[in-house]
Amino acid sequence: MFFQHRILLKPKTRGFHLVTREVVQQLPELDRINIGLAHFFLQHTSASLSINENADPTVRTDMESHFNQLAPENAPYYKHTLEGPDDMPAHIKQALLGTEIMIPISNGELALGTWQGIYLGEHRDRAGGRTIIATLQYEQE
Amino acid sequence: MFFQHRILLKPKTRGFHLVTREVVQQLPELDRINIGLAHFFLQHTSASLSINENADPTVRTDMESHFNQLAPENAPYYKHTLEGPDDMPAHIKQALLGTEIMIPISNGELALGTWQGIYLGEHRDRAGGRTIIATLQYEQE
Amino acid sequence: MFFQHRILLKPKTRGFHLVTREVVQQLPELDRINIGLAHFFLQHTSASLSINENADPTVRTDMESHFNQLAPENAPYYKHTLEGPDDMPAHIKQALLGTEIMIPISNGELALGTWQGIYLGEHRDRAGGRTIIATLQYEQE
Repeated sequence: MFFQHRILLKPKTRGFHLVTREVVQQLPELDRINIGLAHFFLQHTSASLSINENADPTVRTDMESHFNQLAPENAPYYKHTLEGPDDMPAHIKQALLGTEIMIPISNGELALGTWQGIYLGEHRDRAGGRTIIATLQYEQE
Repeated sequence: MFFQHRILLKPKTRGFHLVTREVVQQLPELDRINIGLAHFFLQHTSASLSINENADPTVRTDMESHFNQLAPENAPYYKHTLEGPDDMPAHIKQALLGTEIMIPISNGELALGTWQGIYLGEHRDRAGGRTIIATLQYEQE
Repeated sequence: MFFQHRILLKPKTRGFHLVTREVVQQLPELDRINIGLAHFFLQHTSASLSINENADPTVRTDMESHFNQLAPENAPYYKHTLEGPDDMPAHIKQALLGTEIMIPISNGELALGTWQGIYLGEHRDRAGGRTIIATLQYEQE
């Protein structure tokens, strides 16, 4: 009924990345689930998990351009600046975008819409890999 | 323990719409659930699901005015422009607002606060109906 | 398999507050759960629940400064102004940040990352206590 384990995402450059495949490849249990829910929880405060368009890479570059406007570096009122100019904007971006998503499971697959994919927003200039706690819930047959 | 089905929302004009009733009417199963959780997952990348004030319609118009400032059309750095000036702002708005919500179920009803309702944010100028995957989880008696 | 009850948060000043301890203290059931999910649903439309950095208090003050830019008071297009200049910005902030979070439970604890904590965003100038509906789901042993 519950299945929980860690998913490790490889280090990424700053920006938005489509990670649907990288996530699903680490969830072989999905196949066997008829109805359920998959929860993905990113254990970090300077990266984000969200859902967005899966086809055109310019959506990812436009997201990065625009979130750099919404959460700019070096705002005069920032006090949390010790870890570099990209740090406080990273916390703001993850607060705006979120660090967890829940996706329904239907017939062995994530029930994403045709154009939906999972985005990792990497909001630091130089970050290591990122950890997701995946929790799958399903009906026992 | 799990109940999953599609909810269809009728086409809406661009802006924010209170859809609590339209959603609940398509969930006759709610009545029989004592304790549980209801998950609503919108299968689109240019509309959003969120929770907000359910009483005064000017909250919905102010939300539309303000999100048009937060995600304006025709920003000079947008590259994803082929599908019209409302398209990239729609992706940004859904990323900011989210496409899924989880609401507790108590005594046969969504346990919303007195002033809370479900908002569909329709972020395209001309859109068709929208599909939600509803997944209800509950304790078997 | 399901456990649901109300968590009451004491009144807070306007701004962001780390409430992980205040929340967990009201969930004695956590101890006994090996694998599960904890859902927190804030029943209000002018406060928010989100996850952010748990160590440096300047992150909380910077969040308040920046969200006051993202959702300023007295925008000329606001029509929902009867309840004071802090009201419509409060609705916008909760829409941007969210009012519910789901956190995995592992080995009797919330599986938060090292630097993650639960933030209550209090977006009104003068607010009373706030109510969260907590729903815990877990595998029956």
